[in-house]
This record gives sequence, C-alpha cells and structure tokens, in this order.
Amino acid sequence: MTTHASFAAFAETLADAAREKTLPHFRKNVAVQNKAAGAEFDPVTLADQESELAIRKLINEHHPDHGILGEEHGFEKGTSDYTWVLDPIDGTRAFISGIPLWGTLIALHNGEMPVVGVMDQPYIGERFVGVDDTAYFSRAGERTQLKTRPCESLKDAIFSTTAPELFYSAAEKEAFSMLHGSARLTRFGCDCYAYCLVAAGGIDLVAEVGLKPYDIQALIPIVTGAGGVITDWQGGPADDGGQVVAAATPALHAEVLSILKPLAASH
Amino acid sequence: MTTHASFAAFAETLADAAREKTLPHFRKNVAVQNKAAGAEFDPVTLADQESELAIRKLINEHHPDHGILGEEHGFEKGTSDYTWVLDPIDGTRAFISGIPLWGTLIALHNGEMPVVGVMDQPYIGERFVGVDDTAYFSRAGERTQLKTRPCESLKDAIFSTTAPELFYSAAEKEAFSMLHGSARLTRFGCDCYAYCLVAAGGIDLVAEVGLKPYDIQALIPIVTGAGGVITDWQGGPADDGGQVVAAATPALHAEVLSILKPLAASH
Repeated sequence: MTTHASFAAFAETLADAAREKTLPHFRKNVAVQNKAAGAEFDPVTLADQESELAIRKLINEHHPDHGILGEEHGFEKGTSDYTWVLDPIDGTRAFISGIPLWGTLIALHNGEMPVVGVMDQPYIGERFVGVDDTAYFSRAGERTQLKTRPCESLKDAIFSTTAPELFYSAAEKEAFSMLHGSARLTRFGCDCYAYCLVAAGGIDLVAEVGLKPYDIQALIPIVTGAGGVITDWQGGPADDGGQVVAAATPALHAEVLSILKPLAASH
Repeated sequence: MTTHASFAAFAETLADAAREKTLPHFRKNVAVQNKAAGAEFDPVTLADQESELAIRKLINEHHPDHGILGEEHGFEKGTSDYTWVLDPIDGTRAFISGIPLWGTLIALHNGEMPVVGVMDQPYIGERFVGVDDTAYFSRAGERTQLKTRPCESLKDAIFSTTAPELFYSAAEKEAFSMLHGSARLTRFGCDCYAYCLVAAGGIDLVAEVGLKPYDIQALIPIVTGAGGVITDWQGGPADDGGQVVAAATPALHAEVLSILKPLAASH
C-alpha cells in the first residue's frame, strides 16, 4: 500500500482552516437559514458555507488536479483519481444547539476508496485522523493511536445512532428495534462523533441510514485504521453512504450484518 | 436575598476535587459494576464513588454542620438548614461511552430551595454556576454571564431529552410525543448538559421524568439564574426530581406546562 501520510498532513491544514471559520460562530447567534423548502428542519449556517469555501480554496491552490465533493458547494471534477470529500459541519443540529459533538469531515478518495479521513472537533480541541491502515487521535499537542474495544457480541455492545426517528422504512425501523433491543446500551445524538468513539474504544456499534457520501467517507479510514469494520448494510463499501454500519470488531460486525442484511434496501 | 457567593466559591473547590477523581478514568477501561439487580443497565464507576467521597470529606472538614445527600453514599443529616446535594457523575452512560457530556453536579439547598448549583465538565473544561439570581459560565479562565435565548413558543423551541424510551407511562409517552411533534427540533442524550445549554441559550426546552433530587438540584440555580424557568410538571418546585421541565422563558414554560400539567403524575 502506498502511504498517504503527506495527504493526511495536508488534510490537517484544511481542518485548521475550517476551524477559523466554524469556531467563531459556535454558541453565537448565527443566522440559520432553512435550506429545505418543506417541513423538514435542515439548518445550515454561514459557518458551514464559509468553511467549505476556505477548504476548497486551499485544495485548488495546492492540488489543482484533485476533484472536490462538498455538502455545501457541490462537485468539481478533477483531472486525477483523487477527490476530496467534505462536510465542514457534520451535525449542524448539534451545532445550533450548542452541543460540541459536531465535526468537520475531510476525506481523500483515491478512486477506489477513502485513504485519508479527518474528523476535527475544534471546540473541544479533538482531532481524529485515519490514513491507510492506521488511525490516531490528537488533542493539546498529544497524539495517541486509536484502537477499538474488543467487543465481539451485540449483547455486550454500546450502540449509537443519531435519532430513532431517522430509521424511515418499516425494514429500517425493524433493524433499529432489533439492535436497540439487543445491545447493552443505546446512545443517541452523536452524528460523526459516534464513529470516532468506535475508533477510540468508547462505543462499539453505529448503525445509521440516509447518509450522504460526505457524511461518511472521512470516518471510514478512522474506523478501519483503529481496527473496526465499516460497510453498508449489504456488507459492501460504505463510500456512497445510505445505510451504514460500523463495528468495533469483525466478529461484532458479522453478527450485526446477519441482522441488517435481510433488512437492507436493495441497490 | 442573602448572598451565597462564598458557598458558590466553596462549591467550585468541590468540583476541582471531583475532577481529580473523575477525569483520570474517562476514556479508560474502568471497572463498571452493575448496580441494578434487574435487567436495567445502571453503570456506576469507581470514579463516581471516589469523587463523591472526596467531596464529602471536604464538606465535613469545612462545614461539619451541613447535611449531605449524594447518589453514591446516601444521606448524612446536618445540624444546620444547609444540605449539599451531589451527583459526582451525572450521565454515567455518556461517561462509559466516551461522550464528554456528563457532569459533576453539586448543589447547596438552604432548607427552602437550592441556592447554589455547579455543573462541571472537566474533560471539555467547562463549568456552569448558578448562585442566587445569577448564573455564569467559565472556561479557560474566562467567565461569562449565562443568559437563556428569548424563545417564547414551542414551535420555535429546540427541545432536548435524554432518551425517548425513558418516558414510561402512557401519559408520559403522550407528553413526549406532543413536545417532540411540536418543537422545532429534538435532541437526545444530553443529561445535565441539556439544562446547562438552556442557561447558555443553545437549547430552549428540556422535559424529563424519573429524576432524583441529586440529578436536578444543581441545575435549578443555573437555569433560573440565566433567566429560565424550571419546575415539575405540576408547576411546583423541581427540587424533588421526578417529572421536570426547564424552559428558556416564562412564556415558553407556560405554554409547555399547559400541555404537561394534565399529563403529570399526581403527587
């Protein structure tokens, strides 16, 4: 495997730039515009848009051949195999509520898979980075390896998902109910932070639905680099988002996939 | 109103002492013992017990006439009107999952009402303090006044509750459903942190059930000192826990109480 360490270092400078645009707006009265025309509450802040522009500018300067896919400003095709996949504020609902569990997500996809992933939580000062087959956590200048917990069974697992009502179809509701009913403990409301806690050995299992590629790609190298397994509910790559499951160990992933696969939406 | 500022300063030294016992165990593999005999998962850690002992020791040294009620080590009656009401780790489920939204809760009750409340989140380094009719937030040596958001209507409110399944009776489930269906946005999983975000102007409404006195007393001066209203679902004092509602403004509280009061458990 080629090393993507220099791209990971560059991704960290992108996270630094995003921080300058997001943090000043956190717990301030930001102008929240309602992106959705319908009843669904879908907040997006100035911070979100400005930070994505700051990241895009740096990528265009330093890697003009790379493509960019971002939540706020769409897709720019590159001339190389590399594409940066960005969500400047994942967890906008947490952000507007003052809850510091949102994160800036930055992934680099090499045309086959995400090879670099960064999740940055600037208020707490935490950064989770996955690159190739390793993952690390940094805070206050200290860096530690990330390692999932050796949880091999659903009955022992701490399960996290953003909100129960996001499981939309009857099959998805049944999936939620089975995981919630069998896991040791269920936590709600963590968005990207939950996947990082799988990598850090706090949470053992995350299952979610309706994800976009930019919601999940940065988290894939973080989870896999820490020893976890992350796929869609069919067991295939999670790159495209949709129905995603992340588990601390291959054994836990296999057990949970046996529940989710029969309930998975067909592609 | 007499001032309780010196007690608030003492309460902050108690939070400092608790921090020394809780933080070293956060995101470490702590021994989790299952306090509940039944199926309910009720974790309590060494950190929880040690930090309460550290707090009790300081209170006994400095205020031997004060009573103490703590989650872990029960009630010691004092010879004065004052009682310290303690939950060294509120949000033990968050704690064991690695989620930094747990807090150390320290209240001083004067025989009529809680007059001092501290919520300390040592990992993030945040402290919320309410004393008499004011409340403040401190982090990294900076102190700011806490002020709720001027949200006066449920349809505009960000609503938070720990988990939907904690609403147990049919009436409680109906109450949850009405708030969740009418609020602008619902967040889960915050425990004590949600009340502090009401004080900080992030969240507008919290409604919960099944609380103990030590789960709520520290949060009362923080919410009221920031301009919010916190009562039980009957509109009476929230000191005893049970069914509790906290709102950013008197108008929002009145609207929500009109929903909750007919559904409240009788005393």
